[in-house]
Amino acid sequence: MKAWVNGQESMLINLTDRGLHYGDGVFETMLVTMGKIAMWPQHLARLQEGCRRLNINLGLEDILRQRDMILNKVTTGVLKLMVTRGISGRGYKISGDESPSLIWTHYELPDYPAAFFLEGVDTHVCRTMVSRNPALAGIKHLNRLENVLARQEWQTEYQEGLMCDEFGNIIEGTMSNFFAFKNNILVTPDLTAAGVSGIMRQHILDIARQKGITTEIRDIPIAELDTIDGAMLTNCLIGAWPVRSIDHRRYPIQPFCQSLQAHVATGRQ
Amino acid sequence: MKAWVNGQESMLINLTDRGLHYGDGVFETMLVTMGKIAMWPQHLARLQEGCRRLNINLGLEDILRQRDMILNKVTTGVLKLMVTRGISGRGYKISGDESPSLIWTHYELPDYPAAFFLEGVDTHVCRTMVSRNPALAGIKHLNRLENVLARQEWQTEYQEGLMCDEFGNIIEGTMSNFFAFKNNILVTPDLTAAGVSGIMRQHILDIARQKGITTEIRDIPIAELDTIDGAMLTNCLIGAWPVRSIDHRRYPIQPFCQSLQAHVATGRQ
Repeated sequence: MKAWVNGQESMLINLTDRGLHYGDGVFETMLVTMGKIAMWPQHLARLQEGCRRLNINLGLEDILRQRDMILNKVTTGVLKLMVTRGISGRGYKISGDESPSLIWTHYELPDYPAAFFLEGVDTHVCRTMVSRNPALAGIKHLNRLENVLARQEWQTEYQEGLMCDEFGNIIEGTMSNFFAFKNNILVTPDLTAAGVSGIMRQHILDIARQKGITTEIRDIPIAELDTIDGAMLTNCLIGAWPVRSIDHRRYPIQPFCQSLQAHVATGRQ
Repeated sequence: MKAWVNGQESMLINLTDRGLHYGDGVFETMLVTMGKIAMWPQHLARLQEGCRRLNINLGLEDILRQRDMILNKVTTGVLKLMVTRGISGRGYKISGDESPSLIWTHYELPDYPAAFFLEGVDTHVCRTMVSRNPALAGIKHLNRLENVLARQEWQTEYQEGLMCDEFGNIIEGTMSNFFAFKNNILVTPDLTAAGVSGIMRQHILDIARQKGITTEIRDIPIAELDTIDGAMLTNCLIGAWPVRSIDHRRYPIQPFCQSLQAHVATGRQ
């Protein structure tokens, strides 16, 4: 594993960084293949939107220069970029003049079995809720304790857990977005109050629309899992995984899913 | 400012620490006077409870040894202790064998004017909500973006902001707990779904009960701010501040508040 802080190779950061104290920042997890970051413009746009909403002064030039430097050393794998508000004294108050910390880490590609992609995955509806707050919904911020707790609910019997909000609507997976197929319509949860607006989620929605598939963004109550025809999970590393089961419910792979899979780059390619 | 990581004086931590990546940890902010940590048993108990709920293996001996070492060097001020799950690879999943990071930072006492304590403070009801999640409610975890956002809603015109949940109930201040006085009853918000269960909040409740004051822990809808007789904010550094105003509403200082103030140690003593 390699890491860079503000352009310098380092495994250490200043412990007064607000990323540590408050989770005061955002991040992106990106797929690198053949020396390029897949879907870079979309990752950058979400990072900028997250910083705008948190009022973090993200410098575009710094990011681009550091990205180019790192892509000279890294040609494949996973690149994670955290942008925190930077260092400060004690307390929630900011001056507005903080200088963001850009923290890049490089990891090997995860070694998911091909069967997850081809035959689907088994999933579980988590007891741990995802909380609702429109001020944080959609952005990929560093406050991820709910995901950490949800991921502790199983060991190896599932490949992913689904998380609901307080009202019992499916919002997302712990590390992925959720799609359901129902009556030839591709449905994905509304994320205006909770959840992370995934790059791959938007990409899949765009492709589906281009292919003439009807899409819906709306609440999906847990009870509706009994009446959907199939489901799919997406993120920028897995691409799209068919869902084979959600707890006791079993689903066939949808032709929709296979046809969408052909359009996404994944870590396994 | 001084800092120690796992007992060694340092200003740096490993950037793979899950405290940075996910806010995967808890913290305490403690008042040090005359070489002692005020209310140490209560801080330790909350820290242990937080670690238990997050499934972090906190070693009591390490904490006590590091505390004693630091109290040999620090006799007054603010001591903040963060306990994170420690370092790990990428992803929410934990092995369960992670070794927690104990990160201590020492700061000067905040220089709040005596008038805040004696004459009360002006406050504001924030637009930024505190989110509801029973899995995280009560503990002082490191996912504090909501507090950071709420604190950006004012500069110097207020001394504190009050935060409500999605249903419009007052939960707490950005850095304090909230008490209302109404019909000779001391009321404080129920924190089973949101908020931090303050050490000073519990101490005030205990003292009030010893003094024969009736206490209630229940929801306080925003609308009720128009019918309360007075209010108070508490934390371990400020002790108890009377609330002089909440936006346009003005309140007299309650004799209750003054009599409770006499029983709490604060940074100004």
